[in-house]
Amino acid sequence: MNGAESLLRTLVNGGVRICFTNPGTSEMHFVAAADQVPEMRTVLGLFEGVCTGAADGYGRMAGKPAATLLHLGPGLGNGFANLHNARRANSPLVNIVGDHATYHLRHDPPLTSDIESIVQGFSGWVRRSRSAQDIPADAADAIRAAMTPPGGVATLILPADYSWNESRDPAPAPALPRPRPVDPATIRQTAALLRKGEPAVLFLSGSLFTEQGLRLAGRISRATGARIMGNRSVARAQRGAARVLVERLPYPVEPAMAMLKGVRHLVLAGTPPPVPFFAWPGKPDWIIPDTCRLQVLATPEEDCLAGLETLAEEVGATAEVSATDPGIRPPLPTGEITAEKVWRTLAALMPEGAIVSDEGITSSRDADGWTLGSPPHDWLNITGGAIGQGLPVATGAALACPDRKVFAMEADGSGMYTLQALWTQARERLDVVTVIFANRAYKILRGELSQMGIAAPGPKAAAMLDLGNPELDWVKLAEGMGVPASRSRTCAEFADQLRDAIQRPGPRLIEVTL
Amino acid sequence: MNGAESLLRTLVNGGVRICFTNPGTSEMHFVAAADQVPEMRTVLGLFEGVCTGAADGYGRMAGKPAATLLHLGPGLGNGFANLHNARRANSPLVNIVGDHATYHLRHDPPLTSDIESIVQGFSGWVRRSRSAQDIPADAADAIRAAMTPPGGVATLILPADYSWNESRDPAPAPALPRPRPVDPATIRQTAALLRKGEPAVLFLSGSLFTEQGLRLAGRISRATGARIMGNRSVARAQRGAARVLVERLPYPVEPAMAMLKGVRHLVLAGTPPPVPFFAWPGKPDWIIPDTCRLQVLATPEEDCLAGLETLAEEVGATAEVSATDPGIRPPLPTGEITAEKVWRTLAALMPEGAIVSDEGITSSRDADGWTLGSPPHDWLNITGGAIGQGLPVATGAALACPDRKVFAMEADGSGMYTLQALWTQARERLDVVTVIFANRAYKILRGELSQMGIAAPGPKAAAMLDLGNPELDWVKLAEGMGVPASRSRTCAEFADQLRDAIQRPGPRLIEVTL
Repeated sequence: MNGAESLLRTLVNGGVRICFTNPGTSEMHFVAAADQVPEMRTVLGLFEGVCTGAADGYGRMAGKPAATLLHLGPGLGNGFANLHNARRANSPLVNIVGDHATYHLRHDPPLTSDIESIVQGFSGWVRRSRSAQDIPADAADAIRAAMTPPGGVATLILPADYSWNESRDPAPAPALPRPRPVDPATIRQTAALLRKGEPAVLFLSGSLFTEQGLRLAGRISRATGARIMGNRSVARAQRGAARVLVERLPYPVEPAMAMLKGVRHLVLAGTPPPVPFFAWPGKPDWIIPDTCRLQVLATPEEDCLAGLETLAEEVGATAEVSATDPGIRPPLPTGEITAEKVWRTLAALMPEGAIVSDEGITSSRDADGWTLGSPPHDWLNITGGAIGQGLPVATGAALACPDRKVFAMEADGSGMYTLQALWTQARERLDVVTVIFANRAYKILRGELSQMGIAAPGPKAAAMLDLGNPELDWVKLAEGMGVPASRSRTCAEFADQLRDAIQRPGPRLIEVTL
Repeated sequence: MNGAESLLRTLVNGGVRICFTNPGTSEMHFVAAADQVPEMRTVLGLFEGVCTGAADGYGRMAGKPAATLLHLGPGLGNGFANLHNARRANSPLVNIVGDHATYHLRHDPPLTSDIESIVQGFSGWVRRSRSAQDIPADAADAIRAAMTPPGGVATLILPADYSWNESRDPAPAPALPRPRPVDPATIRQTAALLRKGEPAVLFLSGSLFTEQGLRLAGRISRATGARIMGNRSVARAQRGAARVLVERLPYPVEPAMAMLKGVRHLVLAGTPPPVPFFAWPGKPDWIIPDTCRLQVLATPEEDCLAGLETLAEEVGATAEVSATDPGIRPPLPTGEITAEKVWRTLAALMPEGAIVSDEGITSSRDADGWTLGSPPHDWLNITGGAIGQGLPVATGAALACPDRKVFAMEADGSGMYTLQALWTQARERLDVVTVIFANRAYKILRGELSQMGIAAPGPKAAAMLDLGNPELDWVKLAEGMGVPASRSRTCAEFADQLRDAIQRPGPRLIEVTL
C-alpha cells in the first residue's frame, strides 16, 4: 500500500470521512487513492479558501475533523484566512499540504516556498512526514492534535514521493485526549463568589453555547443572579425559542463597556477575557471595569461543561430553567426592505433545526435580537475576523448536516472573497440558501473611519469603501456558477422567494437590494 | 504629519504612484491620507490576490514598484500566492501590511496572526516599523529593497497607531543600488568557451527577454553558433515579428531533455540552471546532460545586460542581426474552434504593442509558435506556478500601460481563482480583453495523472479534475462584475468578437467553448 492510500485509510479509521481539496500535480496520488477508499468523500473547491472554510464549517457541525488537501505553499496561502478563522473557532481540522518530492526540493523549483513558516502564521500543530512509512502514525497524530481540546488545526506536510512510495498498514483510530478536569477548588471558589450576590457575569466560551451548556448557565443564573454573557462571535451557538438567552457583547467599545458597567465579578468559563476587536485612537483598549475581578473558572483546554455542571451543584442550582424567551414567531415584516426586515423575515419562516452561517457584518449587528423567536437553530459566526468565511462555512455545514436547511446570510463585500463556494454548493446539490445583503459598500469601514476620528473622508477614501461602481449582480454571479438566483427589492418579494427557497431542496441565492 | 501621510509621500517621492488595496479598520488612516496625496492613485481589489497580482503586473511593465496595502495576516495570506509569483518574477513590489496598534497586540484580538512568519513563506525583505517616526526611513528602505537587482517583494509591517501618530517629514527618493558588474574574467572565459565552436547554449534570464537583450543574444549566436534558450515562463518577454527568437524549454521532462541533448556548454546568463517543474516517479529529476558543462556568465544580481554586451564584443559579434522570423501575419483560422485557433486568431488580429498575460496553461502549451508572426508585443507568464495570476497581472499591466491593449489569455480553472479582478477592470475602465479557454477541466492534471503512472483514474479522481459539473458560465460571471461579455463557439464568432473587443476601449470578456 502506498503512502497516499495509507493516509486516507488512517484518516477514515480516525473518523475523517470528507476531504475538501483543490489538488495539484504533487497531490495526484492522494487523489487517485480516493478511488480505493470508498469511505472518504472528496469535494472539490475552485479556490482553497473555499476548502478550508468548508472544513471549518464541517468541523463545527460534525464535532470531528474534515480533511483538506492543498497544493504546496501557495495552496496553503490561499487557504490561510479561513484556517485562521478555524483556529479562532477551535474547529478540529486535519490540514494536509502536499509538497515537492523530497529529492526535488534541492532544485528550488518555481512552486517551492517555506510551508512551515506559513503555518506558523496561524499557529497550529504542524509536522512534515519523514518517510512514507511514517505517514500512518503522523496522520493519526494529526487527528489526535486536531481533536485535542479545545480543538484545532493540525497541518501535515506530505512530500509527493511519500505518496507513491510503499508505506505501512494504516493506523487505527488514535486515542483522543479528554479535556483536563477543572480544579474542584476553583469551582468552589467560584461558587462562593457567585453566592455573594454581588453583580456577576458568567462569561461563556463558544463551546458552552450548546443546549446543555446553556441550560446549566441558565440554572446558575437563576440561582445566583449572575448574568450570562458571551462574545458576539462564537463558532457555533445553539439558540432560538425555548433556549436560554445569552447577552452578547457588542462590537463597538462604548456599548460593550456599558454592558459590563457595574459588574464586580467576571467568571470566565473556558475563554480568555473579552477584548476590543481593534484599537481606536483615544478610545479605551480594555472594556472590563477596573473594579471588576476576573475569575477563571476554566481555561479553554479544560472540561468547561463538566466544570459548569459541578458549579451548578455547588450553588444549588438544581431546578431546570425554562426559556427566558417566550418563543413566539415574529410576524412577517412588510413594505420597503431593510437588513432588519431580512432577518425578521428569516426568523418568521426559518424551519426548525436550521443552520445560519452569519457573515452579514453591519447587516447582522442586531440580528441576535431580531431572530429570538425563531425555532431552535444553530448559528455560525465569523470567528477570526477574516472575511470570506460565510459561504464556505455554510458549504461545510450543509455537508455535515444534509438533513438541515442552511442559510448563508452574507454581506456583499465579504461574499466576493470566496464566491467560488457557490459552485461547490451547486455541484454537491447542497441545501444552502444564500441571502446577499447588497448594500454596495464595505459599510463597516465607513463606521470605522468615523471611529478613527476621520469625520469627513475625501473622495479617494470613500471610493475604497464603495462597491457600487460598478454594481455587482449577484444573480448573474450565482447563475454563472450553477446556483439558481433571484433578486428581492421589497419585503413581499423576499418573503416569497425565501419561502420558495425553503421548500425546494438544493442551493439557491437571493440578492436583497438594500 | 501623521505616519500614514508620511508613508504615502515617501512612496511618491520614491516613484511609487499606485497602491492596490483592500484595506480594513487598521488601515483607515492610510486610506484617509490618500486624499492628501494626489500623486498616489489607489485602486480597490475585491480580494487581496487581485491586489498583489496587479502590483506584480504593474511592476513587470513599469519597471518600478507599485504598493499594496493589505489588512493584517489574513489579508497577507490572501495575497500570498501572487506575492509568491511576484517573487519568482523578480518584480519590484512594496507590500504594506497593516497590523493592530502596538498596545493592542497583547490582547491577542481575533485578527492577530504571525505576519512575519507568513512573509518568510515567500522569502522577501521584511521589516516592522518601530515607531511612527521611523516610517519614512523604513518606506524608503522598502523601495530600495524592492528595486535591488534583480527586484523583489519588500514587506513593510505598519502597526495602526503609527499611522495616526505624529511622524517625520517624508523621506526623499532613496539611492537605488546598481547591479553588480559581471567579472571581466568570467566574460573572457565564456567568450573563449563559445569560440571553441562546440555545441553551446546561451540560456537567458527573464530580464534579458528585452529588445536590447535579445539583439545582443542574437549577435552572439550569429557569431558563435550558440543557440539561444530560456525558460518557458518568464516575467516579461518582448517578442513578435522582427525580434530574435528564443527556444523555450518545454514543461514536460522528455522534450526538455531532447532539446538539450548534445549540448556541451550551457551558459547561464543571469539565471540558475533550468529544472523540472515537478518530480514524477521514475522520471529524471535533472534535464541537463551529464556531459554538459555549466558556465555561469552572470548571477541574477549581476548586470546581465552589460555582461552580455561585453561578451558580444569579446566574441566579435558586432553585426546587428535582423529577425530570424519573417514576421508575416498568420492568416485567420476558420471552422471549429480549438485552443490553437484561438491563439492564431489573436496572432492575426493583435495590434502592435499589445501585452499578453498568459495563463492558458494547457491551452498555451504551444502558443509561442502560434503567435510568432504577430507584431511586436510583450508576453507575461505565470512565473511561480501559483494559478490565479493571469487576470490580476493583466489588470496591473493595463494600469502601467494605459495606451496599450492587454489580452488576458486565461484557463477557466485558473481564472476562477481570482475572478474578482474583472470588477477592478470594470471600475477602472481598463483596456483588457479577457479570453477564457473553457475546456471545463483542470486539463493539465489529467496529463499529470498519467505522468504519475496512474493510467486509469477512477471516477472520484476524475471528478476532482472536472469543471463541467456544473458548467461555469463566464459570460454571466463577467457581466455580474460589470464587464461586457460574449461567447464564441466557432472561429468566425471568435474573430468577430475579438475584432470588436480590440476596437472598443474598456474591458471585455470572451468565453471560448472548447
